[in-house]
Amino acid sequence: MTEGPNHFTLSCPIPIQEYPAVLLAHGGGGRLTQMLIERMFLPTFHNPALETLHDGVVLEVGGARLAFTTDSFVISPIFFPGGDIGELAVNGTVNDLAMCGARPLYLSLALILEEGFPMEDLWQVVRSVQEAAQKAEVEVVTGDTKVVDRGKGDGIFINTSGVGVIPEGVEIAPQRVCPGDVVLISGAIAVHGIAILSVREGLEFETTLESDTAPLSELVGTLLRATGPQVHMLRDPTRGGVASALNEIAASASVGIVLEEAHIPIGDEVKGACEILGLDPLYVANEGKCLAIVAKEVAETALEALRSHPLGREAAIVGRVVEEHPGTVILRSRVGGKRIVDMLSGEQLPRIC
Amino acid sequence: MTEGPNHFTLSCPIPIQEYPAVLLAHGGGGRLTQMLIERMFLPTFHNPALETLHDGVVLEVGGARLAFTTDSFVISPIFFPGGDIGELAVNGTVNDLAMCGARPLYLSLALILEEGFPMEDLWQVVRSVQEAAQKAEVEVVTGDTKVVDRGKGDGIFINTSGVGVIPEGVEIAPQRVCPGDVVLISGAIAVHGIAILSVREGLEFETTLESDTAPLSELVGTLLRATGPQVHMLRDPTRGGVASALNEIAASASVGIVLEEAHIPIGDEVKGACEILGLDPLYVANEGKCLAIVAKEVAETALEALRSHPLGREAAIVGRVVEEHPGTVILRSRVGGKRIVDMLSGEQLPRIC
Repeated sequence: MTEGPNHFTLSCPIPIQEYPAVLLAHGGGGRLTQMLIERMFLPTFHNPALETLHDGVVLEVGGARLAFTTDSFVISPIFFPGGDIGELAVNGTVNDLAMCGARPLYLSLALILEEGFPMEDLWQVVRSVQEAAQKAEVEVVTGDTKVVDRGKGDGIFINTSGVGVIPEGVEIAPQRVCPGDVVLISGAIAVHGIAILSVREGLEFETTLESDTAPLSELVGTLLRATGPQVHMLRDPTRGGVASALNEIAASASVGIVLEEAHIPIGDEVKGACEILGLDPLYVANEGKCLAIVAKEVAETALEALRSHPLGREAAIVGRVVEEHPGTVILRSRVGGKRIVDMLSGEQLPRIC
Repeated sequence: MTEGPNHFTLSCPIPIQEYPAVLLAHGGGGRLTQMLIERMFLPTFHNPALETLHDGVVLEVGGARLAFTTDSFVISPIFFPGGDIGELAVNGTVNDLAMCGARPLYLSLALILEEGFPMEDLWQVVRSVQEAAQKAEVEVVTGDTKVVDRGKGDGIFINTSGVGVIPEGVEIAPQRVCPGDVVLISGAIAVHGIAILSVREGLEFETTLESDTAPLSELVGTLLRATGPQVHMLRDPTRGGVASALNEIAASASVGIVLEEAHIPIGDEVKGACEILGLDPLYVANEGKCLAIVAKEVAETALEALRSHPLGREAAIVGRVVEEHPGTVILRSRVGGKRIVDMLSGEQLPRIC
């Protein structure tokens, strides 16, 4: 064993009595994921880059400002209405780069295959990766393939990491969010999560609900060109949904956020499905939507810019950043009531991405 | 389903009759891995960067020359003599960057955990990642954590991707290898593979055989400073061992390679274990060794440079590059016989990294 002295002197920062083993919720993007990040990863790897707590990291390398990000995809099922794991793996990493304000350029592709995975399925996934990469105008430039024995994986897991370049003048960071800012969303929420659940649970809808997976880099480019440095923060609300994403931002920036329920775009079918399933759509994953927090003065310009792009036609102003209740997100309901929208606790939909 | 028309019009490039499903050997670094890369990945993602077929890729971004690489680690067992999956995941990616001639700078860390994985083990792995990163002078700057349900993973899989900067004047590529060049190895071969097997098979040695996992960036830096642009190619012979690595290079550069068996450093215990197990040490994985192919004029300088570093004390000149038999590696045995050292076919040691 390689247990150095440090392994004995520094005890596990997660309370072992309470969490002796990893739970599904540790990967759910909610409170337990946050606990791992804040108590285990940040103090261990501590460095300024990591501590920005963004979807990706901004690095100065040889004079250029690069964004660098990584994401693994373990979605089940791997083929779903509106997409598959290959398309998702490209769009997910492209979007994390876009959320840093970067123009995505290069992706790596690492596959962990389970022995016995059908070769035809692998081919279909690989083709989807390439189609999605072309659509997002990125290149898959390096890769890796591992195979694990039958029963030690689940068909296919994909990791994509990405590198992009951040244009001059663009500076997206939770720390830039300040009271008075306006919160926009680029379209209807909770579509991806409900599309996946509908396959898993065999729900029937009048039309087929399809995942909203899409590359957001062009949409973000349109927004940044219209509003420039006054875009303070971008985030794609995937695991944990809009609620968890905004909670993270509120905590990082030490601000309060007030959401207007009536202004949050949501489709009727998605809304109905959420009611039947007892899910709060604010916690359901999105894969082709983007939250933008911008200076008040450019709110209308930002809205127009988003709406001018096919992926942002249903964009809306959904909230504002306030000085009060720092770290907390409040929802003002249609009838005027207020409630705290907390971070996701527990696991709502495992393996949604 | 998202099956675009392309999925139907372009059929799977791997013969489905022969390989209807993924085999362990598709991830073994030998012939079947090669087949996936050459028939499926390269034609699908085709771009000049990927086609260098190097351990990583060299990118020009914003004026800088960057190396970018990815690797997943699925080793079993995760704790082994001389290291663990965390240390391996850092060193593996650091070494891939070093093999591009780059100074490794930044790593991403993506974990796929199985529900029920002991929190204490996660903590030990995370600590190992940080200790290895410090030793290799790289920073873990971004990450991701996913959890899959019990029985759908195997404790922990790790992906690390890395970014480094390539100093001016350094140009490492299989295409630079030419007849007359000299092949060096930085130390004794087959240690990692035998160390892992010894745990799996319960072999007993007089001393504990420990994995050779180590960051090679400093060793490579020492070599490059001594010999400069006359280092043509670097490769760390991991999966598939020295034989597969040299076969890949011989094929990419369209040259022949002649190895001198008597000059290849190998420990007595490793040699004995290989004999007992019926393994050819040329195919056994290494995790802290480096092949260097250099211009003939600097061969002795390169050897001295390698030997001046603690990780290269047993370095040796082991072969030469020839014009004859392009794409083929020939081993001259101690007694003067010659045999072709082919690429690994089948799977010798699954999940060795």
